[in-house]
Amino acid sequence: MNSTRISQLFDIQYPIVQGGMVWVSGYKLAAAVSNAGGLGLIGAGSMYPDVLRTHIQKCKKATSKPFGVNVPMLYPNIDEIIAILIEEEVKIVFTSAGNPNLWTSHLKKHGITVVHVVSSIKFALKAQAAGVDAVVAEGFEAGGHNGREESTTFTLIPMVKEQLHIPLIAAGGIATGRGMLAALVLGADGVQVGSRFAASLESSAHIDFKKKVVAVSEGETVLTLKEIAPVRMIKNEFYTQIKKLHQEHKSVEDLKKLLGKRRLKRGMFEGDLVDGMLEIGQVAGLIHKIQSAKEIVEEMVKEYKEVLQEKF
Amino acid sequence: MNSTRISQLFDIQYPIVQGGMVWVSGYKLAAAVSNAGGLGLIGAGSMYPDVLRTHIQKCKKATSKPFGVNVPMLYPNIDEIIAILIEEEVKIVFTSAGNPNLWTSHLKKHGITVVHVVSSIKFALKAQAAGVDAVVAEGFEAGGHNGREESTTFTLIPMVKEQLHIPLIAAGGIATGRGMLAALVLGADGVQVGSRFAASLESSAHIDFKKKVVAVSEGETVLTLKEIAPVRMIKNEFYTQIKKLHQEHKSVEDLKKLLGKRRLKRGMFEGDLVDGMLEIGQVAGLIHKIQSAKEIVEEMVKEYKEVLQEKF
Repeated sequence: MNSTRISQLFDIQYPIVQGGMVWVSGYKLAAAVSNAGGLGLIGAGSMYPDVLRTHIQKCKKATSKPFGVNVPMLYPNIDEIIAILIEEEVKIVFTSAGNPNLWTSHLKKHGITVVHVVSSIKFALKAQAAGVDAVVAEGFEAGGHNGREESTTFTLIPMVKEQLHIPLIAAGGIATGRGMLAALVLGADGVQVGSRFAASLESSAHIDFKKKVVAVSEGETVLTLKEIAPVRMIKNEFYTQIKKLHQEHKSVEDLKKLLGKRRLKRGMFEGDLVDGMLEIGQVAGLIHKIQSAKEIVEEMVKEYKEVLQEKF
Repeated sequence: MNSTRISQLFDIQYPIVQGGMVWVSGYKLAAAVSNAGGLGLIGAGSMYPDVLRTHIQKCKKATSKPFGVNVPMLYPNIDEIIAILIEEEVKIVFTSAGNPNLWTSHLKKHGITVVHVVSSIKFALKAQAAGVDAVVAEGFEAGGHNGREESTTFTLIPMVKEQLHIPLIAAGGIATGRGMLAALVLGADGVQVGSRFAASLESSAHIDFKKKVVAVSEGETVLTLKEIAPVRMIKNEFYTQIKKLHQEHKSVEDLKKLLGKRRLKRGMFEGDLVDGMLEIGQVAGLIHKIQSAKEIVEEMVKEYKEVLQEKF
């Protein structure tokens, strides 16, 4: 595990990447994961450019280890964000939600390691052709935004692996050492863990959201809003309202109006469990405690090693 | 692998169960899988009672190894089917699509090993309480009928494992030795393989259907007809018609009318790739050849052992 292509690419101890999630992944979480031997990512998606700059600067002070930034390319101030990443000499950038051809060569020219997040073979190959250093392939079970193909981690990883030659990070459904080993068995070189870190002590999410993640069981998340962009969330009152609009065959405009602009912040950052949007993966059903990032990484590595000792 | 709770329960060499699929799993396939060291299942779902009896009798002649029968409990002639299983001294019965309380104790009283197929923790525990000997937990990626929770194999298996004490068979997305090992790492005691055997030489499916399975790539299956009962199929012209009814907000009655009574037979048994219903799992994207059941079992076991030798 200590010498996969992913741990080598980022020069980290364990091939565990912490997802750069909106309203969750500030510098505290990213630095804690990097200090624990994984790769921490700051999630730029919920930050104004100057807020992101502050987080990068604070992260550098909080860890001497490699860390990165996740940037959704549909971000309105994307030019400004990219300029900040270069000015602040960020070494690793994960791009998502957009065309990998847009920024990859520009970032690479500045010596930045670029990883692109995909949910299908087609986009994995497109990212590879665009010159990225690695790909995150994310399955249907993942929280937050998700692909239209609905391919699950169990099928997506070996299918992408068959065709991709650059390093591959598996995401979606992975929160334990057992899951990490299964992902590597399926052909991944490393894993990206979102939900479990979203519920960590250092996560910026509201404490009530973290408690809700711990309480969620199997079958209590859903991939919905497919007319706008598929997103996995907890089935709360807000979801009941979405379902009602679906049942009444309301228009996409009505759904967009219901969604509004602040649902996600309200749910995840402000802790409104009723009317907020609560993005989390199916694997929330396996998350039973709010722990520090260090404990999470250590537990995953310990379980991984223990499972390897079992008889198969 | 040779001594999991599942290989012990069925007294078989490898913990590989062949799914008892409608229009696919006749005695030829079941006997071939059992002769290869797995557990073959006859799929009663597409057989009239007297046809099933003939298949059981022929299967006994074609193999001296253990085999079983899969029975969807919503079958119209279920009483008659159960009587035949007992008369013909079938030793292993997999029940699906229905309440495990209905027949489990009756079958157990006649010395039959009973396994129930579920897609959630809730029904896994219900089956265990009903006294079944093992549970098949089937993920969202599986072909054919599927659960409403949409839990994927990667998350469902460890979540069920946490709460279940009887043996657990993983299904959905498993077609290779790599997949089998990953399922066992996630906590399963054995695997059920459907799609790959559906495309085998001994499968009763039409040759054009088998060729189509081999041609299918990632993203080309879909879970649909959720208003009636969720089912995963290949996106063909029939699916385009379903999508059209959805877009036009047609009623469930209209969907049922479109579905009709012979879609599945037409697609899988008669080879109508345009207007037939073509049930298959996402893992079809990893199936590249029509092979004998023996070759499939041998390849899976060989790959399983090879992957175990890799450095993790």
